[in-house]
Amino acid sequence: MLQALMRPKSIAVIGASRTPGKVGHAILENLLKAGFEGTIIPVNPTADEVLGLRCFPSLAEAETSIELGIIVVPNKSVMEALEHCARAGAQAVIVISAGFKEVNAEGAELERKIAGFCRSRRIRLLGPNCLGIINTENKMNASFAAQMPKPGHISVISQSGALCTAILDWSAFRGLGLAKLISIGNKADICETDLFTELAEDEQTRVIVCYLESITSGDEFVKVAEQVSMKKPVVILKAGTTAAGGKAASSHTGSLAGADIAYGAAFRRSGVIRSDGFEALFDSAMALAMQPLPKGDRIAIITNAGGPGIMAADAIENMGMQVKPLEHALSTALAMKLPAAASVGNPIDVLGDADPERYAVALDAALDDETVDAVLVILTPQAMSNPAGTANAIIKKLRGNKPVVAAFLGGRDVMPAREVFLSANLPEYSSPERAVAAIKSMCEYAVWRNRPPRVVTRFPVNRRRVERIMSRQRRGGRREIGEVEGKEILKAYDFNVLPGVLARTADEAVAFQEKIGAPVAMKIVSPDIMHKSDFGGVKLGLSSADKVRDAYDLMMLRIGRRCPDAELRGVYVEQMCRPGREVILGMSRDPQFGPMLMFGLGGVFVEVMKDVSFYLAPITHEEAMEMLENTRSYALLKGARGEAAVDLHAIADALQRISQLVTDFPQIEEMDINPFIVHEVGSEPVVADARMMLSEG
Amino acid sequence: MLQALMRPKSIAVIGASRTPGKVGHAILENLLKAGFEGTIIPVNPTADEVLGLRCFPSLAEAETSIELGIIVVPNKSVMEALEHCARAGAQAVIVISAGFKEVNAEGAELERKIAGFCRSRRIRLLGPNCLGIINTENKMNASFAAQMPKPGHISVISQSGALCTAILDWSAFRGLGLAKLISIGNKADICETDLFTELAEDEQTRVIVCYLESITSGDEFVKVAEQVSMKKPVVILKAGTTAAGGKAASSHTGSLAGADIAYGAAFRRSGVIRSDGFEALFDSAMALAMQPLPKGDRIAIITNAGGPGIMAADAIENMGMQVKPLEHALSTALAMKLPAAASVGNPIDVLGDADPERYAVALDAALDDETVDAVLVILTPQAMSNPAGTANAIIKKLRGNKPVVAAFLGGRDVMPAREVFLSANLPEYSSPERAVAAIKSMCEYAVWRNRPPRVVTRFPVNRRRVERIMSRQRRGGRREIGEVEGKEILKAYDFNVLPGVLARTADEAVAFQEKIGAPVAMKIVSPDIMHKSDFGGVKLGLSSADKVRDAYDLMMLRIGRRCPDAELRGVYVEQMCRPGREVILGMSRDPQFGPMLMFGLGGVFVEVMKDVSFYLAPITHEEAMEMLENTRSYALLKGARGEAAVDLHAIADALQRISQLVTDFPQIEEMDINPFIVHEVGSEPVVADARMMLSEG
Repeated sequence: MLQALMRPKSIAVIGASRTPGKVGHAILENLLKAGFEGTIIPVNPTADEVLGLRCFPSLAEAETSIELGIIVVPNKSVMEALEHCARAGAQAVIVISAGFKEVNAEGAELERKIAGFCRSRRIRLLGPNCLGIINTENKMNASFAAQMPKPGHISVISQSGALCTAILDWSAFRGLGLAKLISIGNKADICETDLFTELAEDEQTRVIVCYLESITSGDEFVKVAEQVSMKKPVVILKAGTTAAGGKAASSHTGSLAGADIAYGAAFRRSGVIRSDGFEALFDSAMALAMQPLPKGDRIAIITNAGGPGIMAADAIENMGMQVKPLEHALSTALAMKLPAAASVGNPIDVLGDADPERYAVALDAALDDETVDAVLVILTPQAMSNPAGTANAIIKKLRGNKPVVAAFLGGRDVMPAREVFLSANLPEYSSPERAVAAIKSMCEYAVWRNRPPRVVTRFPVNRRRVERIMSRQRRGGRREIGEVEGKEILKAYDFNVLPGVLARTADEAVAFQEKIGAPVAMKIVSPDIMHKSDFGGVKLGLSSADKVRDAYDLMMLRIGRRCPDAELRGVYVEQMCRPGREVILGMSRDPQFGPMLMFGLGGVFVEVMKDVSFYLAPITHEEAMEMLENTRSYALLKGARGEAAVDLHAIADALQRISQLVTDFPQIEEMDINPFIVHEVGSEPVVADARMMLSEG
Repeated sequence: MLQALMRPKSIAVIGASRTPGKVGHAILENLLKAGFEGTIIPVNPTADEVLGLRCFPSLAEAETSIELGIIVVPNKSVMEALEHCARAGAQAVIVISAGFKEVNAEGAELERKIAGFCRSRRIRLLGPNCLGIINTENKMNASFAAQMPKPGHISVISQSGALCTAILDWSAFRGLGLAKLISIGNKADICETDLFTELAEDEQTRVIVCYLESITSGDEFVKVAEQVSMKKPVVILKAGTTAAGGKAASSHTGSLAGADIAYGAAFRRSGVIRSDGFEALFDSAMALAMQPLPKGDRIAIITNAGGPGIMAADAIENMGMQVKPLEHALSTALAMKLPAAASVGNPIDVLGDADPERYAVALDAALDDETVDAVLVILTPQAMSNPAGTANAIIKKLRGNKPVVAAFLGGRDVMPAREVFLSANLPEYSSPERAVAAIKSMCEYAVWRNRPPRVVTRFPVNRRRVERIMSRQRRGGRREIGEVEGKEILKAYDFNVLPGVLARTADEAVAFQEKIGAPVAMKIVSPDIMHKSDFGGVKLGLSSADKVRDAYDLMMLRIGRRCPDAELRGVYVEQMCRPGREVILGMSRDPQFGPMLMFGLGGVFVEVMKDVSFYLAPITHEEAMEMLENTRSYALLKGARGEAAVDLHAIADALQRISQLVTDFPQIEEMDINPFIVHEVGSEPVVADARMMLSEG
């Protein structure tokens, strides 16, 4: 799709400069230096020749067609350059020039114009305000970054141009090859998802590494990232995650949701590996690009030093994986081949004087062992150590059946080993902890890749009824939906709501209580009062006519005094629910990623402990169950402290119904079912209270 | 005190070898190569000369006294070598030889013998089974590690010899100097605390870095580490922290405590900076060794690239520190000196084409600003960047009034800057996150250093009474102390216990209830039943004679049936406590560090959420308050959800009384006060139930 951007046969550099140090010079120089084999046409009105190439005063005068235009002229002249590119048949352009959205409103307007122009001419646009693109496959350095990486299998997409130069400098130093490096700048046209799609099909690319500050379209992102992640891993560092979200929320769910949680939910859903730092980004990427995925999380450690072996074992346990000793037969056989003082437990300690052969023998045993899913090889440079020789012995043993990573601790002494490893696609790390973290990211990705197909259940519901309630609500000009209508809506989606009436007089309330002959709850109904209990608007367990009448009168009296302006519709009288475990189910619509469902145990668990989980809607049954499992208080639901387990599947069902409701009705901005009361397995949970907030307009 | 080990004037190498590659050769060679200026006496019965030095068949024949003996002979010959050293007047020896405690019981016996011998002759012993010692101050490399570091201000103590070699290799590569490097091996005599004390007084040492697998004496460790930390920072990587603790616990507190929690509590108490990985260890140490401590946690960021600036800001917020923009006057003045497109917020963005001068100007402003406590300078190598020049401009501006650290991202291009920084004692990191983590460790240490003096309150208590109960208990041969005696003990330490009697008949129970005329709780009393409620042995809120009699009879009947062998002493009848917030107070004695106090909210908060905090006893009032604050559920105690706050100081008092009790009575192994019922401010909390476990024998 982006053929002209990635693999152009001809490139025009508009703004090519003869002055070294200028960006327009650097780009041309880089194209030449890297060895681009297509046609290069420099354009500059004041030069006849640049860097040995004939230069044209304008693209028109070159009288040739081009595939890719690189524009390095001042922002005001970009549009004219684009027009020339269009006339020359360009299918893609890179606008390096800055001075657009990133500076001011005028720049933003200019950016809209150039993007609109490109769209109308079906020209794909990278940038503006970017560093350019590097493709090692066709030796194209179409950027103003001087360093050309060697070919490799990691492709980098970065929203920060400066980070691209740091990555190039770092990878050159590290000897790490790259496939493509793409600076996306202001993303006026080509954005991360376009490139995900492109790189998913790129044979050179095994892992996509991405630094993002913003996401262009949340829906598109989740869809594309999920598809691409099925083919190859996508590792993302999302910066700017802690910035205080300015969104005012009217529900519990809304107040607990935030941009960072939404990104987390989106990444989890789409299989994206989230990285929490610059080094971790490439630590994960190297492992994923170079080694097969593990089948499980059982790790064997081979080391010539006790200390670092223990450090690795600590890290493995801390990250929730398993330190795996070899199976008995294999460890016995290995012991025969190692000195008596060696340990064949886990860590496998080949001793301080280990030669390459000892490492090779131990690695062979670990690779033979089907109960070992990944191997970490550790070396510290001791008197008898031969780091490079050991690395060579290790890479000869690799079979590609399970991941092997190395942590060779030190500096100069282990440097030669690093080169051997990299040349054989074996990732090497400078500390045991980083090696283990890289294995962890492989494990998590493997679990995601092997997850069962997602099947979202559609429940038969009464959608029409909800539509009627919604339009009634909208006619009334109210965004808040309180308990009465909220429960009507939920009933239509087959939620269990206890018998109740909206009583407009004390007599009506009494009549209802007498009819059902059971204790009732009474709650004030007013569109102006969302937090009923704050105003004395809730009374529970009323079991006689007298008590109901007293409660009604008192409520009216007090609310009338405390909120004289509130519109009082009456009192909702409802059969009391038998006691059970109170949970909260909710939804908050993220501006980027749409509806996020929330689950948590009620009361203090949500308000104080903030022990909740969020998933993007629509969810499957498995995901709904994961929502429960991913809270710390899950043990309580399963029946800790001698209590019976509650019906977990009934909660999961309810979450799926909410998922369907908020997918069907995008005007629902936020909602809480709080509390949702659940009981023993086989029973039906009850919606005890509910509220929703509709979108404006 | 370890003068002869650290700065000997004369050294004998017993086991000096002529064969390159042998440890006995390497040590002599390293001593010579590093330029040790004292006398060196090689001892080897089969050589006349080694490496140009006259060699003696035995130390006796050298007919000279020595200060330090280095022993490299096989384990069986070590004792003889020690005797020779003693005769030659050695005040310290290093036993490099292996084959001791680390191999088998026989080796352990040999180790005890050599340690005993050294003790009897007042010779300090380093090792056995160690790499040796390096002191850059007197150019002494008394180890078999070939690399001699350059002088610096970080001293390293390591329980892993292999890690020492890795550290030497890494620091040489990094250009980082060291003060001492000491491999402590099996710690038969000299252990971490001896060295802490020694290095605390060492002028060359500014930071002590320590890799530990075990601690020789917990009490001594806490005492010494606290004293040393008041003088200089101690950064420790404790490995082997996740190993499942095998201790069977009979209390809640005991089951939640563990070795890792105990180390955490000991480190927190003694001001030790805990590091969670090999790289983090030196990241922290470099910052602490090279820069002044920050006065607070307000960090200014100066960067030439937006992306890494955002990454740093994320890290600062995630670690609970503050991203601090400059004060208005300073930022306005700075804006005048920077290009219009630069940002003077935080991050201060000096733009991609920033020259050294721009960095210098921005740094000056940040150093001027008294509301900025630390500065992080970030650079990515862009076309116009001058990393080394920038580093030079930065170091010229340093004033030593607040810490400045750098993160120059990349590889070869930024390498020259790293050297400039190191030479000027400015720590430099390869990612923004690592730089921020290093600042965080400085902030935490600064807070600890500035904490108020620890004052442990001694409450007037009836210690004699507890002694009597304890000896009664011991005579009875019982380790478990149940509710009745437990409350007696706590009453003696001025805890509030409600009126109650141990009723041996239903009549006695009824009589008590009628006397107090209030609802009572009844609980079975049997030394064989610790979990009373599991056996129907608890009834609450009994307010009439009938109910008390029914409860008594039922309890006896049921317990008799379900635990026919249990010794039933009767039923404890106690006035009901008015409802309040239930918390749990407890103590578990760690084998290393002694009594650890625990605090948590009762019920699910402890059992399911494991939301508890541990501190080493004895504690101060401030520490007791911190124990409350360090639980996630603290907000509930302070009065979340419209409830009144409970009396926090009353809980803190109770924790201090437990602290005093378990310090006074070391035979108390574990205890729980569960629940401890607390009410509004000004009220006295109540011990609702309590149990203790005494040590064996």
